[in-house]
Amino acid sequence: MKRILLTLEYDGSAYAGWQRQLNGLSVQQALEEALTAACGHPVTVTGASRTDAGVHALDQRAHFDTDSPIPPEKYPFVLNTLLPPDIRVVESRQTPEDFHARFLSAGKRYTYRIWNARHGSALRRSTHWHVPVPLSEAPVREALATLPGTHDFAAFQAAGGSARTTVRTLREADLTLREAPHGTEWTLTVTGNAFLYNMVRIIAGTAVEIGLGKRAPTAFEEAFSTLNRLSLGQTAPACGLELTRVFYPDEAFRNPAALRWHKEPESC
Amino acid sequence: MKRILLTLEYDGSAYAGWQRQLNGLSVQQALEEALTAACGHPVTVTGASRTDAGVHALDQRAHFDTDSPIPPEKYPFVLNTLLPPDIRVVESRQTPEDFHARFLSAGKRYTYRIWNARHGSALRRSTHWHVPVPLSEAPVREALATLPGTHDFAAFQAAGGSARTTVRTLREADLTLREAPHGTEWTLTVTGNAFLYNMVRIIAGTAVEIGLGKRAPTAFEEAFSTLNRLSLGQTAPACGLELTRVFYPDEAFRNPAALRWHKEPESC
Repeated sequence: MKRILLTLEYDGSAYAGWQRQLNGLSVQQALEEALTAACGHPVTVTGASRTDAGVHALDQRAHFDTDSPIPPEKYPFVLNTLLPPDIRVVESRQTPEDFHARFLSAGKRYTYRIWNARHGSALRRSTHWHVPVPLSEAPVREALATLPGTHDFAAFQAAGGSARTTVRTLREADLTLREAPHGTEWTLTVTGNAFLYNMVRIIAGTAVEIGLGKRAPTAFEEAFSTLNRLSLGQTAPACGLELTRVFYPDEAFRNPAALRWHKEPESC
Repeated sequence: MKRILLTLEYDGSAYAGWQRQLNGLSVQQALEEALTAACGHPVTVTGASRTDAGVHALDQRAHFDTDSPIPPEKYPFVLNTLLPPDIRVVESRQTPEDFHARFLSAGKRYTYRIWNARHGSALRRSTHWHVPVPLSEAPVREALATLPGTHDFAAFQAAGGSARTTVRTLREADLTLREAPHGTEWTLTVTGNAFLYNMVRIIAGTAVEIGLGKRAPTAFEEAFSTLNRLSLGQTAPACGLELTRVFYPDEAFRNPAALRWHKEPESC
């Protein structure tokens, strides 16, 4: 039995999220069906991040076990002929048998994209949140600068979050602006050790309210004190969010048993 | 009666091209149906560029005549509630009555995008041509440098091209590379006074064969001499092509009658 780790890219527009569910096709189900066909036995995968419906991934990871004779690095070639074109496997490798795609992740990077323009964009409609009122850059930058560090992010989760502890460490919260014909692309990049349910979408929704002057640049700091969801703005739409990178310590590929597992339940 | 010029953005993936046809919904038809509903009388539009099936536009232009009381600059607000989200009107203005979106265009810019990576990309699948074998940059740059200028582009058109003269002036043929996880994005930008049918896709297809070492960097120069389509490479797929910009002389908006019209039939 071999444990294989896949790197996946997907356009989440057509899927009910990563995780298998009853009310719609998930990325996990599409992948498991392709793997079951390829390997010739039922396959269950474990993903690094349980992305929501409509959320994209440039670098999702998922592991599974198989005794298939397919060479460990050949899964992209086999699976991409079986998967729909909005899901691509871009890399595969064998790992130690006790590797775990979710629990051994040391961090993740998410990107949230906003199209700030009077009118919507046809070509950005499934990757950007359209915000039709001009946003002010300075207060958003001021607010984002207060995010990095270790904080109690209890206010930054959707109802239904099941995390035992809500303390998280954000390493980076950056903003890039790009002028384009008819509008401006805003790109928020957030990197941290782990994320609560809807955390990045709540950060993005709050950033937009700050950019519109509806909230003060101190909103995030206030939320660290109040621990109250109401200190923050709306949850931004799923389509603007992308899982951009999953980080693992080198040790995860050599001797996973030596690592303290991050068993915190988390989503998004 | 007022003549109105629209600026349009569209994702061409779901359409049978710009121009109305029997075998599928065109962007023109979708737009005319929305305009007919908005204006309360049958409307016919004239586009600047007849983009092929699957080709995108960031900046298509189209004019029409109406006696509707809708203020000339308000069409985006009215039409975007009637159009599907893969077509957006981003600007509108009144022009002189003898303005013409196609014949008065002084030039166009097209962008052709390639995803050069071993495996396909889910998020780029409808905007990039996937080329799975590594491309060499230097010979492609060398070849593109031979394109700008006034040449007989007779070899650079699909069978069925109906242009009376095939002399065109290219002002720019640029290449930008961007390293991304798992591959490289190649972006070709071509600006010229007018284009023959499939001309940009033939340039892109030839550039890729040069990058693969299948053709010499002198291929474009040879084609200017031979005027033979066989001197060039395959026609690259439609999905990688975007109409990026349409240029008009300022005079087109003041006194179109003073301009010599570019009545050359052209497509793409």
